[in-house]
Amino acid sequence: MNSKVFRYISYGVYIITTLDGERPTGCVANSVMQVTATPATIAVSINHDNYTNSCIKKTNRFAISILAETSSPSLIGTFGFKSGRDTDKFKKVSYELKENLPVITDSCGYIVCRVIDKMEAPTHTVFLGEVIDGDIFNNPGQPMTYAYYHQVIKGKSPKNAPTYLPDENKKQAKFECQICGHIYEGESLPPDYICPICGYDASHFKKI
Amino acid sequence: MNSKVFRYISYGVYIITTLDGERPTGCVANSVMQVTATPATIAVSINHDNYTNSCIKKTNRFAISILAETSSPSLIGTFGFKSGRDTDKFKKVSYELKENLPVITDSCGYIVCRVIDKMEAPTHTVFLGEVIDGDIFNNPGQPMTYAYYHQVIKGKSPKNAPTYLPDENKKQAKFECQICGHIYEGESLPPDYICPICGYDASHFKKI
Repeated sequence: MNSKVFRYISYGVYIITTLDGERPTGCVANSVMQVTATPATIAVSINHDNYTNSCIKKTNRFAISILAETSSPSLIGTFGFKSGRDTDKFKKVSYELKENLPVITDSCGYIVCRVIDKMEAPTHTVFLGEVIDGDIFNNPGQPMTYAYYHQVIKGKSPKNAPTYLPDENKKQAKFECQICGHIYEGESLPPDYICPICGYDASHFKKI
Repeated sequence: MNSKVFRYISYGVYIITTLDGERPTGCVANSVMQVTATPATIAVSINHDNYTNSCIKKTNRFAISILAETSSPSLIGTFGFKSGRDTDKFKKVSYELKENLPVITDSCGYIVCRVIDKMEAPTHTVFLGEVIDGDIFNNPGQPMTYAYYHQVIKGKSPKNAPTYLPDENKKQAKFECQICGHIYEGESLPPDYICPICGYDASHFKKI
């Protein structure tokens, strides 16, 4: 059994949102798939430890925002590496309400679902949702795939980073964010560097 | 509600196989996702009308072959546009047995699962499988995404087609396969043309 084979399954990158009482909350997910066309139903898998999981069980509703290749990577940091228990993830994020649920506007589009069934797996819940609303935003672009996130966004320094080196042969070191795994490449890590993915500061980076 | 938003969900292209008694059978699926990591579980959605669905319910096992960008498109034709009820889909296909189930060798790799739960949706069954085996083949390449299948394979004439026209400005017509939707572009459709996806002949094409 070679578990590396799982890396060959293709996914998108999504932000799953719901309400915690009146307060919007959400998390990042990759495991989203359409199950039936008529009526349209969608399955998503969410970890039991994730605060969004328990909130969906209360509201029986969730929305899926489909990230685009051009969506800000900081959305993944905000929704993927912080907990909605103690953070207002929507504080600096542009969103609209659809069927009373928050959807991220910096995305290809959104789908709102009402939970009609669920299946408990050892660490995750698979929610089956019936689609009650959905639309594409203007200029949706290409949906971000999980492979794109790893290969294009995470694997390289951003071009606007202070020590971005287009010449791969130049001597450079790699620094890995211990929170989200983002790799910074450069001769040294600037002390005021902020991880573009999860937003943690330079003290959370380790030379690899 | 704009159902075009569903096109922005990212998928791979997979062949789901099982046994019909002693006989191997299978079908094409896109809706495959990992649900948990430990133990590893995978969900797949298969139409009730699909012969593979009823066979999985008998064997309680299925295998997933992950197609690569370089996998022969004829695999999609064989497994996606014909029924295992009356066709031996494996007749001209290279495969190996893993945990007694057939897996396609012209692919990135395979995952074999034992069904541990299922959820019935209006037209499909979502099978939850616990992974019992899996591996990557040599030179797996890039996994084929559903977008790649539509944009790269289906949307263009093959380069070895008799009337392939690299100059898009040349006058040409489009002929659509009524079985699988493949588009042939050229001044006219050769009478002996065979659809490279589903294998049906020129009589199944319609000028669009």
